[in-house]
Order: sequence, then structure tokens, then C-alpha cells
Amino acid sequence: MHGKLIVFEGVEGCGKTTQLRRSQQWLVDSGWQALLQAKGCLQHLVTTREPGGTALGLQVRQLLLEPSTEVMQSRAELLLYAADRAQHVEGYLKPQLHQGALLLCDRYTDSTIAYQGYGRGIDLNLIAQLNAIATDGLESDLTLWLDLDAATGLARTRQRGTIDRIEQADLSFHQRVQQGFTELAARYPQRITRIDASQTEANVAEQIQKVLSQQFAKWYGLESRKGEG
Amino acid sequence: MHGKLIVFEGVEGCGKTTQLRRSQQWLVDSGWQALLQAKGCLQHLVTTREPGGTALGLQVRQLLLEPSTEVMQSRAELLLYAADRAQHVEGYLKPQLHQGALLLCDRYTDSTIAYQGYGRGIDLNLIAQLNAIATDGLESDLTLWLDLDAATGLARTRQRGTIDRIEQADLSFHQRVQQGFTELAARYPQRITRIDASQTEANVAEQIQKVLSQQFAKWYGLESRKGEG
Repeated sequence: MHGKLIVFEGVEGCGKTTQLRRSQQWLVDSGWQALLQAKGCLQHLVTTREPGGTALGLQVRQLLLEPSTEVMQSRAELLLYAADRAQHVEGYLKPQLHQGALLLCDRYTDSTIAYQGYGRGIDLNLIAQLNAIATDGLESDLTLWLDLDAATGLARTRQRGTIDRIEQADLSFHQRVQQGFTELAARYPQRITRIDASQTEANVAEQIQKVLSQQFAKWYGLESRKGEG
Repeated sequence: MHGKLIVFEGVEGCGKTTQLRRSQQWLVDSGWQALLQAKGCLQHLVTTREPGGTALGLQVRQLLLEPSTEVMQSRAELLLYAADRAQHVEGYLKPQLHQGALLLCDRYTDSTIAYQGYGRGIDLNLIAQLNAIATDGLESDLTLWLDLDAATGLARTRQRGTIDRIEQADLSFHQRVQQGFTELAARYPQRITRIDASQTEANVAEQIQKVLSQQFAKWYGLESRKGEG
């Protein structure tokens, strides 16, 4: 048995953290989790995130997100994300997948390409090199890209109140990030599925449930279930 | 005008931090600093270190050195050192060199090769790749390698009292690190000068002063001075 890695991606305010939690709840409530466990397709369901999916990663996450008086150099930032990822992949994702977990992960390699590559303008080959080092080749089985225009996402984020270092960046930065996700989705249609995140929270949840149901049916050779609505 | 980067390297307990401070004091007391400033060869003299030469680096240093309950993955450790270095090079070393500083730095790229490569067994090509990313090509002008056998160094360290995460590693780890420095010194004789660190603190200081005097004479086309004893 080998688990599956499902990643939620998108710009600030696209709702991926909320939708990840809703998906987790829905997997339990709809009976999918019990069915997949009964059929021997998965052992357990866990959620995680980057940065911050490990004890070390949590501390790195603080460095990355807290506003600082010192300018953080672009390559230093990139390497911190990579360090968080290496710890997460080797110390958490791989062992979990080995145990047959269904993993819902908030951000992964595409965020680095979108934020550091498209957003900060760091060479994409350098990022690909570091992603390869950090992941040791581990890719997501499915990436749900919550597609939302950057201005709408930022406005949602600012309503929340406190703003972190990344959210402080100007709109044009976030627009470049969104452009990055758009190009990645076009380049990797097999791995990345687009979700229209401009809809209501309930509607976005429904879109995701539909994609997950179809994906489980495909992965595990099962009929698509009714509980997905 | 362009400054110079002088790096102090060696195993735990080799005395490099002590000797770096003594060298700084000697550069002032001997009149070298004043002479080089008067001749327009340098603007100022500063000391720094890796990890921990910047505000961000200090926080990364804490992550690297504090004992943790979670196993730190080798590649995560390597990437944290690289993040510290990228911040240090771009945010501190390069601007300082640009201003004509003489920089005395406690550890640099050779430590990563010795500790992570020889010590932890991480692929040396991967380390070279990351050193290149982190330094953006900046090499030391002179590296003083304080050569001391690992067992003697560790015994000195343990007399100090508190032991950090790196010092906790077993003797064979530190012996591989020492082997790394030995091979680096053989491979880069132009850049790395060996200092016999098994001697008394005063004798080691004298050896270093001699090397520095000769190096200044060479770099700046000056006569070697008497004050070096």
C-alpha cells in the first residue's frame, strides 16, 4: 500500500486553508474515508502544510512570515523554504505515504515556483534545482489549484486583520504569483486541477468534492459515490 | 578599493574563534590596521561568522545548534546552512567588501563541505551546487585552517561545559570532518593555509600573525613588518 499526496495551492486569500479543512471534514462525513479504509486503499487521513509541517518547519515558518527590520535576501528566502520542505518530505511526507496515508497538504513545490520564481523573479532553473533537492523527487498525486484573481484574494486577506510579511508585498507581486499558477496549470494538466475559487465557499467545496470523488474512483478503481454533493 | 575576506576554519575546539579575536586585536595593536588604512588599502576591520552573521542568520543558527527532539534531516540541515550563507553573503559580506572592509569570518564554505559532506556523507556535488547558489561565487581571499586532531578538539570543547547539537555527534563524525579539512587543504593550497593548532594559544597566534603579515605584503605590495611577532 502506498498513500496519496493531495496539495492545495493558490494565491493569498484564495481559500485553500479553509477548503482543505472542509475537504477533510467531508471525507469523514461522506463516508469516503471509511470506504477507502475498508477497501484497504488507505490507512488514515492527515493534513499538513508548508512551510511549517514539522517542528523545525514551524520555526522556519516563523522566520519566513514574521515582518523583520532586516531585508530578507531572495536566495536566503528560497533556501529557507527548501529547508522546510526537505525536513517535511523526509521526516513526514515519505513516512506517512509509506504507511498508506491520504495526505492533504497546504502548499508544496508549485508555491515556490509561483512566489519565488514568478513573484520575486528568481531564476526558474535554480528553483527547479532546489525543489528537486528538497523533495528528492516526490511529486503530488493531485494538486488542486484554487484560481482567484490576486486583487480579490488580497482584499479577502486584509479583511482578516493581521498581515504577514508575504501578504505585505504589493499587488503586482501577487499578480505575478497568480500568473505563475496559471502557467503551471497549463503546463501540468495531468497533475494540476483548476478550481474556480471566485465562487461561494460552499460552491468551491462542491467543486473540490467532485474532483476528489472522480480521482478516488480512478485511483482505486471504484465507482464514483453519491456522497460527493 | 575592494576589501578582503579572511576565513578561519577547523574542527570543534581547534581554537578558531579565540584566534579570530586575537588576530583582530593584534591587527589593531601591531599597527597593521592603521598602516593599511593610511595607505588606502582598507577602510575598516570587522569580524563575522557563519552561521549567525546576520539577524536572520542568528535565528537560523539557533535552529541548527539547539538540541531538538525531532531528528534534523541531513538535507534540511544543509539547506539551513545555505540560507544563512545566502543572507550573509548578499546582505553583509558583499556590501562590506564593496566598502573596502577587511573581514575576519568564523567558518565559511569549507565547513559545509567538511561537516555536511565528509561528516554526514551528503553528496559533495550537491554541496558544491548549494555553496555556489548561496555564495553567488564569492570565495575567501585567504582561509586559515586550524589543524587539530578531532579527539583533542572535542576534549577541549567538552571542558567548556555546555555542548551543542553538532558537538554531541560522536568522535568518528568529527574525525571525518577533520579528514575533509585535510583533503580541502591539499586540494586548494593557494587559498587554504594550514596552521598547527596543537600548539599553545600564543604559538598559534604567532603562526597566524606571520601568515597575515606575509599575505598583506603580497596583496598590497608592502614590506613585511616587524610588528608581527
